Amino acid sequence: MLLSKLGEFNLIKKFRTSFAKTSSEIITGIGDDAAAISQAKKDAITLITTDMLIEGVHFDLSYTTFYQLGYKALAVNISDIFAMGGKPKHFLVGLGIPKDYDSGDIDELYSGIKSLAKKFAINIIGGDTCASRHGLVLSGTLTGETKRVITRSGAKPGDSIFVTDTLGDSAMGLMLLKKMGNKKWEIRNKKFKLLSSKFSLPTSHLRLIRRHLMPEIAPLKNTGGITSMIDISDGLLIDLSHICDESNAGARIYMDKIPVSQELIETAERIGVNYRNFALKGGEDYALLFTAPANIKIKACRLGEITKKGRFIVDEKGRERPLKAEGYEHFKDSEQSSVRLFTIH
Amino acid sequence: MLLSKLGEFNLIKKFRTSFAKTSSEIITGIGDDAAAISQAKKDAITLITTDMLIEGVHFDLSYTTFYQLGYKALAVNISDIFAMGGKPKHFLVGLGIPKDYDSGDIDELYSGIKSLAKKFAINIIGGDTCASRHGLVLSGTLTGETKRVITRSGAKPGDSIFVTDTLGDSAMGLMLLKKMGNKKWEIRNKKFKLLSSKFSLPTSHLRLIRRHLMPEIAPLKNTGGITSMIDISDGLLIDLSHICDESNAGARIYMDKIPVSQELIETAERIGVNYRNFALKGGEDYALLFTAPANIKIKACRLGEITKKGRFIVDEKGRERPLKAEGYEHFKDSEQSSVRLFTIH
Repeated sequence: MLLSKLGEFNLIKKFRTSFAKTSSEIITGIGDDAAAISQAKKDAITLITTDMLIEGVHFDLSYTTFYQLGYKALAVNISDIFAMGGKPKHFLVGLGIPKDYDSGDIDELYSGIKSLAKKFAINIIGGDTCASRHGLVLSGTLTGETKRVITRSGAKPGDSIFVTDTLGDSAMGLMLLKKMGNKKWEIRNKKFKLLSSKFSLPTSHLRLIRRHLMPEIAPLKNTGGITSMIDISDGLLIDLSHICDESNAGARIYMDKIPVSQELIETAERIGVNYRNFALKGGEDYALLFTAPANIKIKACRLGEITKKGRFIVDEKGRERPLKAEGYEHFKDSEQSSVRLFTIH
Repeated sequence: MLLSKLGEFNLIKKFRTSFAKTSSEIITGIGDDAAAISQAKKDAITLITTDMLIEGVHFDLSYTTFYQLGYKALAVNISDIFAMGGKPKHFLVGLGIPKDYDSGDIDELYSGIKSLAKKFAINIIGGDTCASRHGLVLSGTLTGETKRVITRSGAKPGDSIFVTDTLGDSAMGLMLLKKMGNKKWEIRNKKFKLLSSKFSLPTSHLRLIRRHLMPEIAPLKNTGGITSMIDISDGLLIDLSHICDESNAGARIYMDKIPVSQELIETAERIGVNYRNFALKGGEDYALLFTAPANIKIKACRLGEITKKGRFIVDEKGRERPLKAEGYEHFKDSEQSSVRLFTIH
């Protein structure tokens, strides 16, 4: 049914039924002026983050399903809570929707949110729904809790730099999606296939595309000893530079230590681009980048160390070069893509 | 400076300097993956609300300054917290900005937010800044705290219905702004005058326009005894119907008890429209509508009573008529205005 026929209040009613109260912490959920929650752990610190996703800037509905979009809107916020060392708790979603959209699309979007919320036991407690004139706008706000806040500012010279997952996959996935045009990928219920087509693709492509559309985020199991942390949303070089800036420190990373997937290397080779650019500057991998004393025992890849000052990258031949914070920055880039394909200098 | 020259990270830097940590409750403010706050009162209930403002839907920059827009983005969220009986605490602002905007405009917007934040001792703890393709998008998230949550669902038959301010002013202010075209009003520092013009207006117009652009919101001083509450954002008829729906009750209101300003009556007469439509269906007054036992002593206008069922309005001649929930609803209305000028039936 067209939204212009259903109307705002019926949409909110559907939303409310779909996200009924699921936790005793929620005093008032969707359907009042504000949500009301009691704090389960009285001594916990509350975390809160907000992210905006704008059609044509952050996503393209020609290759993203509404389900995937809902999933990702929540995923990027969870990633921020993980990056502070927290556990995600309550989610609010703001939606600006063009009125010629179908209410079934919005149902799909909510399903995507719901699937990920369920995985991490997140309650959906409220939001705002309104008309938009140009394209879909999503705004997600997520709260979290933690006993210890891990900021970007605690890195110390001598600390090692770690990352929890391979880098560059998401940016390559985005590039593939753009190259292939408007083919939609169905990846609900763990099945990942192309919608309405018998077009076949190498499995390596599938994994990269999936990483872009529905990033599998995970928290660090044990944050004891971690001195600083950030999630990779703008690319390794930019996100590492945030840690250096905030910690007033330098860094040295090693190209051959940066974890990259076999799929990224193969695909980059096939289409004739340098995979290193994707690993260094590609955004939206939503892996966690953190620092900790070198002797820490942790399941993550060590890719360099924090120094007193200066930022350098050591290439495969052992040559040290200065490192520039390049990657995705809003306003500055005319590209919608989250990666700019420069060569490293 | 153009945003495309300044860039996202410099903008965040400015934002961060402008909104330095102002409270010991804030562990981490702007500039990390999420804000971290400790709860001052351990037994308090946390409130949280989010609102989206989209250019061309919620505001028109041809007659709204950036300062006013910032002010209003925070005001609508504070109003939601007041409507739950709470005290506003921490604000996060998401901004989607076209890249050809000037950074000075964004400074003005922040000034508007800041002026109101200061008045209510609200901390600005974070946000998200990104590029937008079509027009400005704002998303505000505000937390609050309260010992007792006042929902929409507690109204009891026999309760009186009250409102804290005159109704219809904001909708009439909007109509005047539209009629006058793109003249901007400077109402910073309590001074309210037309920018760059010697055009003069009746004082009544000024007050109505001001009410629309910079609503003066205020909490109820004492919420003891209040059984339900909502803020008037979509118009009296719709907002009252929300209380009836949630409380599973009816209502009877009296046209001659609805508080209206002399300015509204005079202006409506001058331009030949019925002021009652503005009072009943005009949105965005941000007054508080609440119910309480009839014998309560409170500074507010009593405009009717809660009944077991049915919704009626009694006109000036004592005739009772059924009441329809008409006012502003997103998607359903082709008008950007928050009032539709039907006659009451």
